[in-house]
Amino acid sequence: MGGFFGMVLKRDCIADVFFGVDYHSHLGTKRAGMAAYDEAIGLQREIHSIENALFRTKFENICKKMYGRSAIGCISDREPQPLLIRSGLGTYAICVIGVVNNSQELIKDCLASGFAHFDAMTGGEINSTELVAALINRGGTFAEGIKFAQESIEGTASILILKNDGHLIAARDRLGRLPILVGSSPEGYSVTFESFAYKKLGFDDEKELGPGEVVEISADGITVLNPPGKEMRMCSFLWSYYGYPNSTYEGVNVEVMRCRNGEIMAAQDRANGTMPDVDYVCGVPDSGTPHAVGYANASHIPFARPYIKYTPTWSRSFMPLTQGDRSKIAKMKQIPVKELIEGKKLMFVDDSIVRGTQLKETVELLQQNGALEVHMRSACPPIMYGCKYLNFSRQTGDLELLARRVIMELEGQEGFSHLEEYSDSSTERGKKLRAAICKKFRFDSLEFQSVEGVVSAIGIDRCKLCTYCWNGKE
Amino acid sequence: MGGFFGMVLKRDCIADVFFGVDYHSHLGTKRAGMAAYDEAIGLQREIHSIENALFRTKFENICKKMYGRSAIGCISDREPQPLLIRSGLGTYAICVIGVVNNSQELIKDCLASGFAHFDAMTGGEINSTELVAALINRGGTFAEGIKFAQESIEGTASILILKNDGHLIAARDRLGRLPILVGSSPEGYSVTFESFAYKKLGFDDEKELGPGEVVEISADGITVLNPPGKEMRMCSFLWSYYGYPNSTYEGVNVEVMRCRNGEIMAAQDRANGTMPDVDYVCGVPDSGTPHAVGYANASHIPFARPYIKYTPTWSRSFMPLTQGDRSKIAKMKQIPVKELIEGKKLMFVDDSIVRGTQLKETVELLQQNGALEVHMRSACPPIMYGCKYLNFSRQTGDLELLARRVIMELEGQEGFSHLEEYSDSSTERGKKLRAAICKKFRFDSLEFQSVEGVVSAIGIDRCKLCTYCWNGKE
Amino acid sequence: MGGFFGMVLKRDCIADVFFGVDYHSHLGTKRAGMAAYDEAIGLQREIHSIENALFRTKFENICKKMYGRSAIGCISDREPQPLLIRSGLGTYAICVIGVVNNSQELIKDCLASGFAHFDAMTGGEINSTELVAALINRGGTFAEGIKFAQESIEGTASILILKNDGHLIAARDRLGRLPILVGSSPEGYSVTFESFAYKKLGFDDEKELGPGEVVEISADGITVLNPPGKEMRMCSFLWSYYGYPNSTYEGVNVEVMRCRNGEIMAAQDRANGTMPDVDYVCGVPDSGTPHAVGYANASHIPFARPYIKYTPTWSRSFMPLTQGDRSKIAKMKQIPVKELIEGKKLMFVDDSIVRGTQLKETVELLQQNGALEVHMRSACPPIMYGCKYLNFSRQTGDLELLARRVIMELEGQEGFSHLEEYSDSSTERGKKLRAAICKKFRFDSLEFQSVEGVVSAIGIDRCKLCTYCWNGKE
Amino acid sequence: MGGFFGMVLKRDCIADVFFGVDYHSHLGTKRAGMAAYDEAIGLQREIHSIENALFRTKFENICKKMYGRSAIGCISDREPQPLLIRSGLGTYAICVIGVVNNSQELIKDCLASGFAHFDAMTGGEINSTELVAALINRGGTFAEGIKFAQESIEGTASILILKNDGHLIAARDRLGRLPILVGSSPEGYSVTFESFAYKKLGFDDEKELGPGEVVEISADGITVLNPPGKEMRMCSFLWSYYGYPNSTYEGVNVEVMRCRNGEIMAAQDRANGTMPDVDYVCGVPDSGTPHAVGYANASHIPFARPYIKYTPTWSRSFMPLTQGDRSKIAKMKQIPVKELIEGKKLMFVDDSIVRGTQLKETVELLQQNGALEVHMRSACPPIMYGCKYLNFSRQTGDLELLARRVIMELEGQEGFSHLEEYSDSSTERGKKLRAAICKKFRFDSLEFQSVEGVVSAIGIDRCKLCTYCWNGKE
Repeated sequence: MGGFFGMVLKRDCIADVFFGVDYHSHLGTKRAGMAAYDEAIGLQREIHSIENALFRTKFENICKKMYGRSAIGCISDREPQPLLIRSGLGTYAICVIGVVNNSQELIKDCLASGFAHFDAMTGGEINSTELVAALINRGGTFAEGIKFAQESIEGTASILILKNDGHLIAARDRLGRLPILVGSSPEGYSVTFESFAYKKLGFDDEKELGPGEVVEISADGITVLNPPGKEMRMCSFLWSYYGYPNSTYEGVNVEVMRCRNGEIMAAQDRANGTMPDVDYVCGVPDSGTPHAVGYANASHIPFARPYIKYTPTWSRSFMPLTQGDRSKIAKMKQIPVKELIEGKKLMFVDDSIVRGTQLKETVELLQQNGALEVHMRSACPPIMYGCKYLNFSRQTGDLELLARRVIMELEGQEGFSHLEEYSDSSTERGKKLRAAICKKFRFDSLEFQSVEGVVSAIGIDRCKLCTYCWNGKE
Repeated sequence: MGGFFGMVLKRDCIADVFFGVDYHSHLGTKRAGMAAYDEAIGLQREIHSIENALFRTKFENICKKMYGRSAIGCISDREPQPLLIRSGLGTYAICVIGVVNNSQELIKDCLASGFAHFDAMTGGEINSTELVAALINRGGTFAEGIKFAQESIEGTASILILKNDGHLIAARDRLGRLPILVGSSPEGYSVTFESFAYKKLGFDDEKELGPGEVVEISADGITVLNPPGKEMRMCSFLWSYYGYPNSTYEGVNVEVMRCRNGEIMAAQDRANGTMPDVDYVCGVPDSGTPHAVGYANASHIPFARPYIKYTPTWSRSFMPLTQGDRSKIAKMKQIPVKELIEGKKLMFVDDSIVRGTQLKETVELLQQNGALEVHMRSACPPIMYGCKYLNFSRQTGDLELLARRVIMELEGQEGFSHLEEYSDSSTERGKKLRAAICKKFRFDSLEFQSVEGVVSAIGIDRCKLCTYCWNGKE
Repeated sequence: MGGFFGMVLKRDCIADVFFGVDYHSHLGTKRAGMAAYDEAIGLQREIHSIENALFRTKFENICKKMYGRSAIGCISDREPQPLLIRSGLGTYAICVIGVVNNSQELIKDCLASGFAHFDAMTGGEINSTELVAALINRGGTFAEGIKFAQESIEGTASILILKNDGHLIAARDRLGRLPILVGSSPEGYSVTFESFAYKKLGFDDEKELGPGEVVEISADGITVLNPPGKEMRMCSFLWSYYGYPNSTYEGVNVEVMRCRNGEIMAAQDRANGTMPDVDYVCGVPDSGTPHAVGYANASHIPFARPYIKYTPTWSRSFMPLTQGDRSKIAKMKQIPVKELIEGKKLMFVDDSIVRGTQLKETVELLQQNGALEVHMRSACPPIMYGCKYLNFSRQTGDLELLARRVIMELEGQEGFSHLEEYSDSSTERGKKLRAAICKKFRFDSLEFQSVEGVVSAIGIDRCKLCTYCWNGKE
Repeated sequence: MGGFFGMVLKRDCIADVFFGVDYHSHLGTKRAGMAAYDEAIGLQREIHSIENALFRTKFENICKKMYGRSAIGCISDREPQPLLIRSGLGTYAICVIGVVNNSQELIKDCLASGFAHFDAMTGGEINSTELVAALINRGGTFAEGIKFAQESIEGTASILILKNDGHLIAARDRLGRLPILVGSSPEGYSVTFESFAYKKLGFDDEKELGPGEVVEISADGITVLNPPGKEMRMCSFLWSYYGYPNSTYEGVNVEVMRCRNGEIMAAQDRANGTMPDVDYVCGVPDSGTPHAVGYANASHIPFARPYIKYTPTWSRSFMPLTQGDRSKIAKMKQIPVKELIEGKKLMFVDDSIVRGTQLKETVELLQQNGALEVHMRSACPPIMYGCKYLNFSRQTGDLELLARRVIMELEGQEGFSHLEEYSDSSTERGKKLRAAICKKFRFDSLEFQSVEGVVSAIGIDRCKLCTYCWNGKE
């Protein structure tokens, strides 16, 4: 994944952008960068690897190195960004979040002109941000170029540009899969992926870009370059899994959605008579926690934390010492509280069940610590299709998906024609899938939130949400 | 504060000790160090500042630099440690956690001999670990020397030594204010401050040292050098505030104690008719959370998280960029979820109320975000006396304590003769104190857990616990 | 300036290329980089700033990070290099040494196509290596593209390319102003700017490229892609000033040329009766030293070192601590030996006199240390024209040149019509120039080597050498 | 070896001491440190490893970290220094250069008191600076304590102390083997090992300490605490090998001494009819160079540099990449100029011949490059005894000494009874030794400077010089 943040003010904004970018640290672990524009110096840029150190540490002296009233920055899981590009459109800095599935074809097309070239990375691969820039450069204006890029790209491209006059250009991806929010204050404007980032810095919500919408922003105001499109397919997982709890997208707060989702699950369990008699309702940290809190609040079953993360040093994934230490490290983040497990009947709520790898270890550890019963709830429906629109960390091939693997075991290829049925807990196939997973992991019960349940917890038009990974609807 | 961890195995233990020490990262932010013993190399030592980088980052290559079957390490809020000392007792590495209040006197006494000297630190101050070592050296044996040190020191000294034969010596402070636990596995032994650290590395509880007890540990077994004393004054705050939730001291788990403490507070509120009608019960993160969970579970009032920490980068306090950014940074860790605050009646549970500084900001932010009512609960009694036995981070002078300041405002010096009354919510003075604080902070209600309540939540003999900061009993 | 080094072997060559590049450290102080090709990994690249640390330090772990049987590297005074470029010609790494005077025009031309873009640097400037690559990409083959680039560029471009099949392509600049030498060993080939670099690594001279010549090199042999041109204008300063003493260009060793140059100067002084009666002949370190040794050997006046550089730490220019310390640092490299100055008559030989700034300080320091007489000899003629072909460190505007400034003082603009006369010590104007400089700097005598003298010391065809800065001949 | 530098001024002196210490970088390669005293802060200290980076780099920000009007610093080949010590004498910083041969005995003696302890280093070794401090602490005053230390130590201890009142105490070792010079300026005083260091910073020679002399220095003046002793044994190698050319000890400049030494050797060769007919006289860089210049000047044989060091990066010995690269690196510093070797008859002058290892490689390389004849001259007599007073880099066991090894081959143990004869070129044994070495290394001739020659080149009383390594006189 990744995330970006930008600002254009009537005063120097480097320290503010530093903090704003830092608030996107949960979205990427490979590279981070900032670019700024100052009238006297022009465009400036700095990029660091954040594989072994936090963004904070690598950029802590940025205010002594970079100056300007407008700046952008990003956290990236892949390529170095932002890039400084000089083209027929002038010189500009650019960040892109998303995934370009047809990059080989697009590169070939660019190189065919005989004029184009790219800065290659190790192994000859092309930075996809540079590719998106090359597509934008094909337009006579930024507005035309971005439209051309949005239409050429198969995948998702959420774009933030800092021009050589200090203006920002923000372009939400064509179907609005990812959010772009604009905040305002008396001093200027801010653009972000996570809304809490600018709120924390003193900005109010000004505008959330519509799908494909392109705006140019100066300290004095916002100009719409391209209006929003009609269709929208916002990623539902933003709320249920990878958005930060404090963020609000399309007016819906993440933490609130998760609690509500847990409440709906409890109501469904009660209605279906499937609410087990357990001592505690517990979340799989971190994203399962608010789903579990909602379930506990609605069911009046006590909430507890039988697993607690060791956050002082395990806040993110650093590279392990040696290959041999890897498996040890993987298990070291989650620490059980035996006193809350031994002899207890527990319900665990997780944000989702993808490959099931981590789940297996979790349950085994509970059983080793003496749990009497383990009931599992997934805060979203069974994942039947791997995502092809975003490269978030749980991206995975169809065949690695736990639901598909179990269906394959149950009735082979044929089962894949009945995915909708399997998804539905009221059908025979739905029941078999749940029973088979329970047996595999030694759960005492298992239930998934329904698509209707998630959509209702989010509370916006179903047709505006992407539910592809659950039901294959594009 | 600070914490140490050691191990003696039948195989190389450097990677394990690295992880074990890392699990003490919440206890200190200044220095960290490790020492190891290898037959061929002898004693080795490495110390780094951890003010701007995590222990993990600074020691990530330690396995390529240090070798041995026994090793110790510590995280420290003050001096560089462990030290390598050569004296009449031989050469050894030593870590000390605690505080020596009479150090000037002890140093003077040592220097009077004409033979002693110390390695001074900037400004001429003496590393108190070196001072404790100098006292130990006065004995003919480690057992005698440690006894001499324990008896000479006013304060607390929890000691871990790695000898030049690879054996460990662990000595709990004279009154057992801090814990030392020993774990065992088929491969050897481990010594720790936080019990979850060795459990996570595959060790079982073997023994918790008694007050003043001194043991020598090899890979083959444990020998008691000095037996435990009879008196004990274990710090109650280990459970209610600074111990890690996963740890267990004297058989009582921290998370469990905190939940139970919250349950007791809810029961008391219900019995006294002081349970307010609120929308949510909430914890002041991190240590207030389980107290709040307990209260919510017992009261059936929904639990919620209207403040969520940004943990990916704010896991600990790094030094701010410039002096001017400090106040901004202080507020950046806690991020409000407006949707859970606006128009809501909220109860907040904090682990304790010391100076009240942070509390003031918290309440103001809630009010800015539109909270209708804010009720406050402190998970321990009013703090009336500054701690003189440990240097934990909330250590503070008597006059800075919020309770004392409010009492001074209410009736001047005279009030300090009635501290016990002020502590008790059923007395007139107790009621006045609570009302005055409510007014000062614009709380809609305030209550403190009672000493009895805390002691009962911990569940061990009252005479074994230090309650000095609440009632002045030494 | 800058320099590059490359190798293609039948075995891994990273360590060898590391050493080879390191031997070009005297040619640049800003950036250094290496690129390598490995069949499994493809092209790899690493670049570091060397402003505050040596190439050795920044690249000391390169063998753990980079693999391959062919690799290139460079030391650069300006842009980050080598670049990895992907274009219609495939993917390749490229280094360019030289200067492109018409870059704005060439960039404009490239961008006009609508397809091209460049990776901008801070301030929007374009890396001239990327510009040269863009020109090369315009050809259907590397041979065509390089020819197109050589013909388009006003200035000098010495090019080294590492292709995606592991072959090297080396292209000497159109007029051969800078050298490119190819060495061979049983294991493969090496390409260098400084010949001693590959000799020290076990290679023998194989071939020196002619002006504009382009060759492709694999471990199996050398293929000429474009033959050498007929015209040549090799920079005379390579021998007299900035080439390393151990290097040999066009068969002429630098140290030998410098000694011979000093001998010729002594012979001329003797012939003209201008050899002063001095105690010592001395060189201005480092490049003046061998000129002085030659003079001393030929004149039988003792050689001495009244200035000795403090080399252990002052080997190159690190950035000074603070602006205020700059002037102090500038003077700290050269340390006088008072015992060899006080009461002595000294002759100093410098490689050249450009602006005269440093010279002024040197003479003052000699006088402060009690020198009785100071006679100056310049190992080349008066510099009358600033170089427009290369960006070496003494590059300077015409008006800053000492000779021009003194001529301006002597007779104003008019004097510039008589530069040839001024250059010649036998004319009236030549005598006046020397006398005026002597007076300005309080020299007791001053002489310049003649163009004939330098050319004779080098010993190759005068028409193959660039003497532009002395006589304006292009 | 190692070296120290200190200053006490009427203004802040940190930047000056930084430069002064830096000028001792040729004396050590392991550790460097600085300590300062400021009235408000007290004593401050900083130590870094300089094994992989220069002193300059490691201390470049020292002015932002350390403050004060008095400061000391040192470059060390062994232990971390300066130490901050607190003892009965107060708190002070201390550097010690030299070697303590009876340290085990002295440590044992200290520890016997039962009060003393030392900060051990890896493996349990004691920092000998701390040991010297412990000895000084035994006195009632610094003067007494230093006298006690000087008398207890077998070896050499040159001491520099910074007291807690900002005064410096400098103590030259008992027999004055190493120099300590004091410089003065209107702003205060400076103490140094290398005299050019303070001259370059604007100080004039004020006083050179006599053997064993101890002085206390404030910004206002110098007080003699202990007067100089009568006996003196200054190390002759200071001039002939390891002192920096710009330095002056006992009024004799190093560069001047070396040139004079070469002149004497030429005179002797002429007198003895042993001056060969060679093309060039050359020095083995760096310390052989001025000896060779003197020889060339006196003999009128041309001086040349057939070996030139690559100084831009090889200025000092960094740790090699891998063990396997070591031998390659050792040879990479010296680069031959084939044009000055091939077909030439050469005389090489080296500062001394110790083990002969490097010499062997040098001669082989000359022969590989086509030298017709190689004549060798050693600027000092044959080394017959390993130094036991100093730990300079060529320190070596008796049996490794080339002269001893050849004598052993010539007549076995018996030969060691005739060392004086072997040393003398006019005896039969002397001639045999020279002939045997010539044969071993394929020299065409070999001669050594005589003890009389060296002493005469230095020009001070023979009884004040240590000539132990040549003739065994203590």
